[in-house]
Amino acid sequence: ADIVVLKGDGIGPEVTHAAVEVLRAVARRYGHQFTLHEHLIGGAAIDATGEPLPAATLEACQRADAVLLGAVGGPKWSDPKAKVRPEQGLLALRKGLGLYANLRPVQPHAATLGASPIKPHLLSGVDMIVVRELTGGIYFGQKQRSETSASDLCEYSVAEIERVVRRACELARGRRHHVVSVDKANVLETSRLWREVATRVAREEFPDVTLEHQLVDSMAMHLIAKPRAFDVIVTENMFGDILTDEASMLAGSLGLLPSASLGEGKVGLYEPIHGSAPDIAGRGIANPCGTILSAALLLRYSLGLNAEAECIEQAVSAVLDAGVLTADLAPAGEAATTAAVTAAVLAQLE
Amino acid sequence: ADIVVLKGDGIGPEVTHAAVEVLRAVARRYGHQFTLHEHLIGGAAIDATGEPLPAATLEACQRADAVLLGAVGGPKWSDPKAKVRPEQGLLALRKGLGLYANLRPVQPHAATLGASPIKPHLLSGVDMIVVRELTGGIYFGQKQRSETSASDLCEYSVAEIERVVRRACELARGRRHHVVSVDKANVLETSRLWREVATRVAREEFPDVTLEHQLVDSMAMHLIAKPRAFDVIVTENMFGDILTDEASMLAGSLGLLPSASLGEGKVGLYEPIHGSAPDIAGRGIANPCGTILSAALLLRYSLGLNAEAECIEQAVSAVLDAGVLTADLAPAGEAATTAAVTAAVLAQLE
Ligand SMILES: CC(C)[C@H](C(=O)O)[C@@H](O)C(=O)O
Ligand SMILES: CC(C)[C@H](C(=O)O)[C@@H](O)C(=O)O
Repeated sequence: ADIVVLKGDGIGPEVTHAAVEVLRAVARRYGHQFTLHEHLIGGAAIDATGEPLPAATLEACQRADAVLLGAVGGPKWSDPKAKVRPEQGLLALRKGLGLYANLRPVQPHAATLGASPIKPHLLSGVDMIVVRELTGGIYFGQKQRSETSASDLCEYSVAEIERVVRRACELARGRRHHVVSVDKANVLETSRLWREVATRVAREEFPDVTLEHQLVDSMAMHLIAKPRAFDVIVTENMFGDILTDEASMLAGSLGLLPSASLGEGKVGLYEPIHGSAPDIAGRGIANPCGTILSAALLLRYSLGLNAEAECIEQAVSAVLDAGVLTADLAPAGEAATTAAVTAAVLAQLE
Repeated sequence: ADIVVLKGDGIGPEVTHAAVEVLRAVARRYGHQFTLHEHLIGGAAIDATGEPLPAATLEACQRADAVLLGAVGGPKWSDPKAKVRPEQGLLALRKGLGLYANLRPVQPHAATLGASPIKPHLLSGVDMIVVRELTGGIYFGQKQRSETSASDLCEYSVAEIERVVRRACELARGRRHHVVSVDKANVLETSRLWREVATRVAREEFPDVTLEHQLVDSMAMHLIAKPRAFDVIVTENMFGDILTDEASMLAGSLGLLPSASLGEGKVGLYEPIHGSAPDIAGRGIANPCGTILSAALLLRYSLGLNAEAECIEQAVSAVLDAGVLTADLAPAGEAATTAAVTAAVLAQLE
């Protein structure tokens, strides 16, 4: 299988390095052949080529079976007046590959409950997956700027809503058959369309799946007040961005959460939900688990290697259970480095 | 002083009734004369007049010193195809009165920490106020709908951003001189403008106030992970809607939180941040504290009656401390009714 590796910026290179080692260990153990190609994206690509997503990178991704990405962005490229920004590279890649469904599973581990701001009794049994629409909405609508004002257009078509709701309902079939669709239908026209389409798709195509609707403001509350109530959550791009960072607090750290971005084609993009964390970049202390678990999702969704994916997930669980935790999770003074956590995961995979 | 009372829908009449009794008790105790006028808004107004904000209501509010509102909306008026919706009345009122700054203070009470999903040690000392922009952004931009798609325009002018940031910085001067501005400047053009304008206003006009920027997704995390870090938070309309519902979980219940919506004129609008809660409407169990505390903000911000405002706030604190709690806060089987909580607050005010 051909895998493109996009290290990106900040802690991106450190965490992708860890995940690549894990992929290599899985290949050895199961006798697979993974061919890894590195390409440039984000700030690193701007520095080298002037563009956040060089054509060579996009083409390599289009030809690949899957893409593993670290993170993009950083203060070096964050001047509000800058013409090109690292994030444009990531957005153009998601759009260019047609990856409209971003899956973000949230399953707190017993070993990391201490790091969560949420009371532990609310967290046991939490097992949700957020399906975030990833190639539409206000992220991609027309942007305008004048001397005295600015605007962003939020747009959704029926087809865009249908396909992502369908993906969420399909996922729910393999789980607890329950989908909560999140919108702001009491204010937004796009949300009213979202609600209508979601209702119709669920009723006509998924009679075995229960669909509920929640307003996004309420959801921001319920997500932490009664997290066990959720199975699959489906929502538009901006709401999904906000709610998944919030949901990461259920797991104890943003650094733990993986994601899979899928479209109609075979190629998927796998990245941790955290950012490039410039404040800790280069110090060898970043949590590699989000990226390692993203590699597991890559094996599952793009390569169909379920046993291998589970093997990685169990290895990460075992390492967390053993208390080998990076600084985002460990009690003060007891933190393991990125390398130590990675080595512990690799040891589980021998 | 002339106060317009807008009961609205669902639990709106129940909670405004409680707050009106409290205002009457304050008037008696301090020898003030409050003239209260009731008017229609929301679903109740649609049923009576066909419009969610009848002209008579808007005019009465424009002439008044202050407006006290319950909540609007409910399933009866929520057909996605409906031409008029209760929420339009609220939005038109905010816009019609020019109330661009929505102040939402969050100060957890010791007595309600048990009801919060957040670990108690994170909550002691939390004292923040969110300033939400209330008359711009995606709430008020052009909406379009066709057979196959829908759109909402998010727009901000420099002047709209300046005035709300100024209000936030002024508030910070009476507090800990610290403002966090929340945006999504790595993706949205309106957010980049927001960040530039906020930076300039703070630097040029408030050199004594420290301004920081946070991305909205990060903020959804930090708000619950380290709530003590925040003093004043300023953000655009939609982000403020989501983040304040989330922040209500710090206080233990949405039902506790008041808000004040202010503009350049003297008239302010005071409403709890909760909605019309149709599921519990008419059962006499709603938490009246958010609306009672909104009446306190009314006295402070529109009538300049600080001692009276504090007197109400202390009365509510004392009632919470005494364990007189509605069902949203009480341990199972120990809940007080709306009337019991209100009576307890009134007893404190004798
Ligand atoms: C870096 C940024 C553009 C991105 C997003 O907002 O989608 C990130 O926050 C994420 O969630 O993947
Ligand atoms: C009812 C609704 C329109 C309103 C809003 O979104 O502003 C409410 O959620 C609020 O926060 O006051």
